[in-house]
Amino acid sequence: MRRLARKGVVFRAGDEGAVLYRLRAGLVRMVEILPDGRLIAVRHVLPGDFFGEEALEGRPYRYTAEAMTEAAVEGHFPEGMGLDGWQQVARSLAEQMARLQAYGTHLQTGDLRARIIRYLLFLAQTPALAWDGRGPYLAISHEEIAQATASLRESVSKLLMKMRQEGLVATGYRRVYLLGPRGLRAWVPPGLLQTSLETRGD
Amino acid sequence: MRRLARKGVVFRAGDEGAVLYRLRAGLVRMVEILPDGRLIAVRHVLPGDFFGEEALEGRPYRYTAEAMTEAAVEGHFPEGMGLDGWQQVARSLAEQMARLQAYGTHLQTGDLRARIIRYLLFLAQTPALAWDGRGPYLAISHEEIAQATASLRESVSKLLMKMRQEGLVATGYRRVYLLGPRGLRAWVPPGLLQTSLETRGD
Repeated sequence: MRRLARKGVVFRAGDEGAVLYRLRAGLVRMVEILPDGRLIAVRHVLPGDFFGEEALEGRPYRYTAEAMTEAAVEGHFPEGMGLDGWQQVARSLAEQMARLQAYGTHLQTGDLRARIIRYLLFLAQTPALAWDGRGPYLAISHEEIAQATASLRESVSKLLMKMRQEGLVATGYRRVYLLGPRGLRAWVPPGLLQTSLETRGD
Repeated sequence: MRRLARKGVVFRAGDEGAVLYRLRAGLVRMVEILPDGRLIAVRHVLPGDFFGEEALEGRPYRYTAEAMTEAAVEGHFPEGMGLDGWQQVARSLAEQMARLQAYGTHLQTGDLRARIIRYLLFLAQTPALAWDGRGPYLAISHEEIAQATASLRESVSKLLMKMRQEGLVATGYRRVYLLGPRGLRAWVPPGLLQTSLETRGD
């Protein structure tokens, strides 16, 4: 079992894929650095999910796995797994496959406001949701939101400012407070949430 | 073993997920119909890939699986699989996961011209590539290209016309002839192909 702080790295793209990981607590994202230097989030890993599945083939990891919150991961060696282990891995990958397909749809549908709200509502269902005296918040930067909404930081900042004026969110340093999850939800066209990021446990 | 014609449907979104499929020949895509009626391709299935993995959990299929070429699929019942079967499924899903993450990047990077060319070059490495007296071609409609490039048919048609004038492609009814794969390749910024759709067998 290994513990990570927010922004801690489980493995980097190119590292030898010797260990299959399972997330025990927290939220992890897989990120890709594009040739132009831009960084995008290609996948989100939730508690219980296996990741670093390149280890099943002994290939180098393709992406960098970075903790978005405090996190705990455990390592598995594929060689030692029995029938039960492989079933668990296959089922986990199948479930993540569904979420990944939905994530692709998310990135392509709705305007930026809809994509931001959808992403915030998704995060609110993960260990990324925290509370302080002001209420529920997500410890996330505008940059990180941009990397998961097919957008740029500047555009995200502009829209979050509007949403703050409308009383939907409040913002602090690397914190987005969700003032009205119901209000937020009303901004997403009916039907789009299910087809996007809310596929877990349906 | 079941044979399908182009446009044949293996299963529809909502069908009971009783059978896990493996593609034996041809190319299959998973499509989603959005609330606004728009259709998008969320995943491409290549020969050897398992799909319909909702059957591992006995859940309804989430997407519709449609053949893009003549195809052959075989069905498997998850209950009857042993260690070897589950290993094959897990490894197949891991490989498709990598392609799916790359597909997400593809949809977000480059202008539409780059995305179209990347998609055509991807298809040229699959059973979608065919030949006639005029040379190598892809049996694909402008609509289908739009559905896999985060775009609209009108924009794809306009760009393909330009590319035809430049001598990169020739077009016929539902056929795109690849006149210069090397020329096409030159249009995609270095580094972007590997990070996008060319991850198979790397």
